[in-house]
Amino acid sequence: MNPRLTELAGLLPESADAALIISEANRRYYTNFVSSLGYLFVTRSGAFLIVDSRYEEAARSQADGCEVILMKRLADTMKELISGQGMKRIMLEASAFTLAEADIVEKIFVSAGASAVKTGDLDKLISQMRVIKTSAEIDKMRRAQSITEDAFMQTIKLIKEGVTEKELALELEFRMRRSGAESVSFDLIVLTGSKTSMPHGVPDFTKVKYGDFVLFDIGATYEGYHSDMTRTVALGRVDGVSRRIYETVRKAQQNALDFVRAGVSCRDVDMKARSYINAAGYEGMFGHSTGHGVGIEIHEAPSVSYTNDFILRSGMVITVEPGIYVPGKCGVRIEDMVVVSTDGYINLASLPKELIEL
Amino acid sequence: MNPRLTELAGLLPESADAALIISEANRRYYTNFVSSLGYLFVTRSGAFLIVDSRYEEAARSQADGCEVILMKRLADTMKELISGQGMKRIMLEASAFTLAEADIVEKIFVSAGASAVKTGDLDKLISQMRVIKTSAEIDKMRRAQSITEDAFMQTIKLIKEGVTEKELALELEFRMRRSGAESVSFDLIVLTGSKTSMPHGVPDFTKVKYGDFVLFDIGATYEGYHSDMTRTVALGRVDGVSRRIYETVRKAQQNALDFVRAGVSCRDVDMKARSYINAAGYEGMFGHSTGHGVGIEIHEAPSVSYTNDFILRSGMVITVEPGIYVPGKCGVRIEDMVVVSTDGYINLASLPKELIEL
Repeated sequence: MNPRLTELAGLLPESADAALIISEANRRYYTNFVSSLGYLFVTRSGAFLIVDSRYEEAARSQADGCEVILMKRLADTMKELISGQGMKRIMLEASAFTLAEADIVEKIFVSAGASAVKTGDLDKLISQMRVIKTSAEIDKMRRAQSITEDAFMQTIKLIKEGVTEKELALELEFRMRRSGAESVSFDLIVLTGSKTSMPHGVPDFTKVKYGDFVLFDIGATYEGYHSDMTRTVALGRVDGVSRRIYETVRKAQQNALDFVRAGVSCRDVDMKARSYINAAGYEGMFGHSTGHGVGIEIHEAPSVSYTNDFILRSGMVITVEPGIYVPGKCGVRIEDMVVVSTDGYINLASLPKELIEL
Repeated sequence: MNPRLTELAGLLPESADAALIISEANRRYYTNFVSSLGYLFVTRSGAFLIVDSRYEEAARSQADGCEVILMKRLADTMKELISGQGMKRIMLEASAFTLAEADIVEKIFVSAGASAVKTGDLDKLISQMRVIKTSAEIDKMRRAQSITEDAFMQTIKLIKEGVTEKELALELEFRMRRSGAESVSFDLIVLTGSKTSMPHGVPDFTKVKYGDFVLFDIGATYEGYHSDMTRTVALGRVDGVSRRIYETVRKAQQNALDFVRAGVSCRDVDMKARSYINAAGYEGMFGHSTGHGVGIEIHEAPSVSYTNDFILRSGMVITVEPGIYVPGKCGVRIEDMVVVSTDGYINLASLPKELIEL
């Protein structure tokens, strides 16, 4: 087993003797092997990856720390492994197995004299490991961020009257993927005009107009790791109301960033941004949390929310992304992705946050 | 309720009085409303869609045939609805709920005096409805196919020595999305050289060489409906072995197509292609099924496999896509998407299948 698998094996509770991992993200996390299908069993003494014939050759050469087993009939292959290794109580990833998938494997477990643990405790163990990033993981996120920033700087040159949200979003995505992104981190958000007030708006044929904001919430993935960044720019000069909103968000974000360090709570980071926004008169116009963890998934633990008393630790990667949304008028959000350190944070984003008026 | 919801309500078994649908595809299928999150309850007398504040306005104007309910706290909103409608036995989509999600709603059900049915029977009812397409659905798939074919015809003009699989795949995707595709149907497959022998290969920086095949397995979505097409072309003249493989696949595909009509089994359609390929000396080199259903998901019922005795009916849409894969040498696959009719089929693909040597 590799160090990660060994750590997970060591975390198994007394009440279980194995874990079964099926989600693509977690299989990749533990074995560094990418495939659309696979069953990774982890016991106290070994790890076993069942794959079908499509992936056998690649898995044998690339899957790290585990024995690769070719699936013939799933039921037969799984039963033989469970019996052979004497597994009795096997934890399932509750956030990945559907009811239908769980039903299939439970029947196989029973035929092999074992039973399933479906409580969600395995998901907590895995999250507990994933929440602290290694320097190798951070390097990949830095690379994803760099691809994102390059594409962004090229794309904002194309902003002019009449260009649509959709064209800008496609252009960004195309640039990221051409320059080495595995994929985009999520459906890219490019919004302009009054649509910027919708935190979950979808790019359409709305055209950029002079004096309007253009909000970009974008990210790329590199070797499985995500970046996440938001910048709000303007075409020409915005009005005073818009400028005040922008500057309030910028200072709120900086307040929250200045507070980030190991040992502080997610709640308090959120409140540093939120209370500044509320005090500036925008109470009720910041309807989402200040941030979230990022890694092999775009949203992972911890949620940087005023309802979460989780304490930040060194090596966690979170976003800090307050916003103000004035329905019918405009919205502004500014987001960086940072690594928590003992005395503060390392910002993985390098682009300026002063308002860019193109 | 709209006709689809009414039909589903009428299909509920005696042992249940409601269904809870959460998958994005099925929520869209029954209400024509698109959102990343939502809970659609269907009883014998009504349908109710719970959404959060992000989607409330859009759902009220767009969701068809159901009452829209704003989620405050999920538990409270759901409990009130279940109690108010007197639901007692609620079927869950077993192929959509994760164990963790099912756990959450089951606790709410219990608090409202109801219980969950997790057998997968609801999934079967829904699949039974979805498998027969209306003419409106077929029109959307035709449009998705037309976008795919246009992008394909433009992109093959770019094939020359040295162009990479990845460039061609990106070019295709962006042409489709620029010309109105909602998205691509799946990660597009463009393979060349000996990589064409991998049915699930992934486009990379492999370059097209003179005398090699380029295999495209591609598709777009339009208003939620998918297209799926495979064509194998060549740069310049291929050798005799490759040409024989190509012609064998082409005839195998035509044999299967000629057999398609309402009343025949999936097994027999598959065998029409398979036995031709085996008889030509390529036994063991066609390792996947001949096809699959397509609709609001890229793979849906029925599986056109020699292990499936399901009988085709008029209005089903299936792919017919045999292939021959010779490891280390090359692979060829040819795929059309067709609507089953009483006396044959309507081919939604219009592009020729004679070998194109560019």
